[in-house]
Amino acid sequence: MSLHPTISSSKVEGTKVYNLAGEMLGTIDDLVIDKRNGHVRYAAMEFGGFLGVGTDRFPLPWSMLRYDVEKDGYVVNLDMTQLRSAPRYAKDELPLYSDAYGRGVYDHYGVPWV
Amino acid sequence: MSLHPTISSSKVEGTKVYNLAGEMLGTIDDLVIDKRNGHVRYAAMEFGGFLGVGTDRFPLPWSMLRYDVEKDGYVVNLDMTQLRSAPRYAKDELPLYSDAYGRGVYDHYGVPWV
Repeated sequence: MSLHPTISSSKVEGTKVYNLAGEMLGTIDDLVIDKRNGHVRYAAMEFGGFLGVGTDRFPLPWSMLRYDVEKDGYVVNLDMTQLRSAPRYAKDELPLYSDAYGRGVYDHYGVPWV
Repeated sequence: MSLHPTISSSKVEGTKVYNLAGEMLGTIDDLVIDKRNGHVRYAAMEFGGFLGVGTDRFPLPWSMLRYDVEKDGYVVNLDMTQLRSAPRYAKDELPLYSDAYGRGVYDHYGVPWV
């Protein structure tokens, strides 16, 4: 176990996200928290926009984020096919994060909904 | 259940905190998240400083925060005796959030550690 088992939201916000090939995908700019139990449901990644998909936000299940010390960023196992069809929303928009929406996001990435 | 079962970290940061008497205690300025499972362990409340205890940060268990729509803020059941002896740290300081530290915080407020 790490000596620092916790991280603050202000540290997470702004952290870069890379794919397994080391390409930067974007940055985390918000965390979406289940009010009832305080679980982080998603990290919202602002996409860099280099693939012509603009600067949409992609909700990613928290458990997908693996911190890489050398990169000082998160590495996620995300291929472009997954990303192109992934749930997203415009930067100035906030989706209704219902459980149904949540399940859809988790299902897209094959992450068990707990 | 609320139509909005989730809230984003950027909304929580900056939200005012009141005691049961309706006095403003301070504002939430950070969330401390357990990396392993994505649970919010604490909300860090920056104290308003009106009681001569400066602008220290007080870690509060997430489950203590009850959102009050009218106040547009959190109401916590916190009396001054509890607050005076509560775990705190200076604004420019970050404590080592070990499980032991966490248990101490939860114990102080009588919140079960889960």
